Amino acid sequence: MDREIVKLIAQAGGIAIFPHVSADGDAIGSSLALALALKNAGKKVIVYLEENIPTVYRFLPGTELACFYDTQDEVMDINIALDTGDVGRLGTRGDAFFEAPCTINIDHHVTNTKFALLNFVDDMSASTGEIVYTLLKKLKLGIDRDIAACLYTAVSTDTGGFKYSNTTSETHRIASELLATGIDIGELSQRIFDNTTYTKLKLTQKAIELLELHENAKLAAVAISQADLQATGAKDEDCDGIVNIGRSIEGVEVSVLVKEKNAEEVRVNLRSKTHVDVSEVAAAFGGGGHKRAAGCTVKGSLQEVKEQMINVLKEKLQ
Amino acid sequence: MDREIVKLIAQAGGIAIFPHVSADGDAIGSSLALALALKNAGKKVIVYLEENIPTVYRFLPGTELACFYDTQDEVMDINIALDTGDVGRLGTRGDAFFEAPCTINIDHHVTNTKFALLNFVDDMSASTGEIVYTLLKKLKLGIDRDIAACLYTAVSTDTGGFKYSNTTSETHRIASELLATGIDIGELSQRIFDNTTYTKLKLTQKAIELLELHENAKLAAVAISQADLQATGAKDEDCDGIVNIGRSIEGVEVSVLVKEKNAEEVRVNLRSKTHVDVSEVAAAFGGGGHKRAAGCTVKGSLQEVKEQMINVLKEKLQ
Repeated sequence: MDREIVKLIAQAGGIAIFPHVSADGDAIGSSLALALALKNAGKKVIVYLEENIPTVYRFLPGTELACFYDTQDEVMDINIALDTGDVGRLGTRGDAFFEAPCTINIDHHVTNTKFALLNFVDDMSASTGEIVYTLLKKLKLGIDRDIAACLYTAVSTDTGGFKYSNTTSETHRIASELLATGIDIGELSQRIFDNTTYTKLKLTQKAIELLELHENAKLAAVAISQADLQATGAKDEDCDGIVNIGRSIEGVEVSVLVKEKNAEEVRVNLRSKTHVDVSEVAAAFGGGGHKRAAGCTVKGSLQEVKEQMINVLKEKLQ
Repeated sequence: MDREIVKLIAQAGGIAIFPHVSADGDAIGSSLALALALKNAGKKVIVYLEENIPTVYRFLPGTELACFYDTQDEVMDINIALDTGDVGRLGTRGDAFFEAPCTINIDHHVTNTKFALLNFVDDMSASTGEIVYTLLKKLKLGIDRDIAACLYTAVSTDTGGFKYSNTTSETHRIASELLATGIDIGELSQRIFDNTTYTKLKLTQKAIELLELHENAKLAAVAISQADLQATGAKDEDCDGIVNIGRSIEGVEVSVLVKEKNAEEVRVNLRSKTHVDVSEVAAAFGGGGHKRAAGCTVKGSLQEVKEQMINVLKEKLQ
């Protein structure tokens, strides 16, 4: 962790935190953890959201510190982007972010464009939550049960519940310390991981129905249209994790989910099991991510993009 | 850990290890880990199985040390039962276990009957794997990558992938050390946890299609016929875990799966989330289990038993 960043945060009176658009457990968890810790240190803190906090994370402590940006809002000393690979991931808050005299970008994506005045990108960290944990240690700020619940959410979701290959010895060391605060791990896990909705289950049903296997069942592909979402009553956020269904099949190496955003754009989510580098595929289409989990947005119809992806991935599987 | 046990194991020349019948990840993982470590220490070691090692755990190192008991086998200095709550859980190996001059029982079940000469039962440990980890430390035996893979399997499966409420700070501390040996956590987790089949997925799809919500969506019910199993190509064992789908829905307190065994009998699986004691329901139909997970076999048609269960559970939910 950069000393300059630690020093500036320690000295600041007011700080705004910007998680990325379509904020996931790591973005929300690390933002709320940092916000709570800075508030405990007597600072003015606000978390600027792009969308409402996903239902599943609304039980987390610190949500009262999060809101939507208003152009009338006072400019803070520092704006910190968390878990945000590039300016585009700030969505409509791009201008707001650069209003502060000091901007800091803290992230773990290898593709991070270092868009802020000061940037700390550690792609060896499994989650931004791990980096925020280290930051709080450097700032000598205590981690209470509320902060621990938020950090646990960040750390556990970005590692798929400590299952993904990005999980390290350090990830578990941090989890060990978070559990020592006395967080109720049974309840927390159930809320984060075992809390589906009937709608999401119906989307899962649809996804399995639509699932195709290619290349001797080494490639799984699912294409979800806006019509499918409407038929099941599902929202965009309900698609989180759908790409993992394909990867969970014995023998499948790569799983791809293509989801119709609108008539012109398709969102692509990629997962691999052991050797295919899906971040290369995503990067070729202007996206990013990690070797085993990446994504991009591609122009074209759902059917076109699905076939394009299947062809590219078939080559990768050769 | 009892000093006497540590001393006896350190001095022994030959040791046999007995996991419980229907061995799970903790029984298999902790047995193979202990066997490998003792073999590395120059001892004669054998793991006596009741059944073949489940397919999912056959990739683990050390399986070459496991076999079935033969009455011609040489008697070892010490027989160690692992993860075994009572003598009944040794199955057909009960007599063989007591043949050794010294018997040791190492377990974490609160109900353990302390049936051996020496017993070490720590019900604060989430898994027997955690206890074996401590034992290896006391024995000053190194934990290499192979032993770590076995211990990780034990520790992670008995905590539901670090999600159950038995997971402690110590569980993660041990996992942290195991990962430091360089085990490939992505591959290991996938082998242990993400190893579904296309057939099982199609059964999941069917189960969600058939899922009914009752009592203001507090009760989830799924009825699976033999025709459904045939249509998806699924076997009876593929139904494991299907009952959890209903329980995972937000707001659902009780989930019931009724599965046609044949024209006259129906198998019933029950799960609850926070307060309904489903073992009482199962017991009323001649079955058994725990408060949150129970089962019974009921005479009648699939449709009849389903309605019977829904009526009984509706009353429980009043």
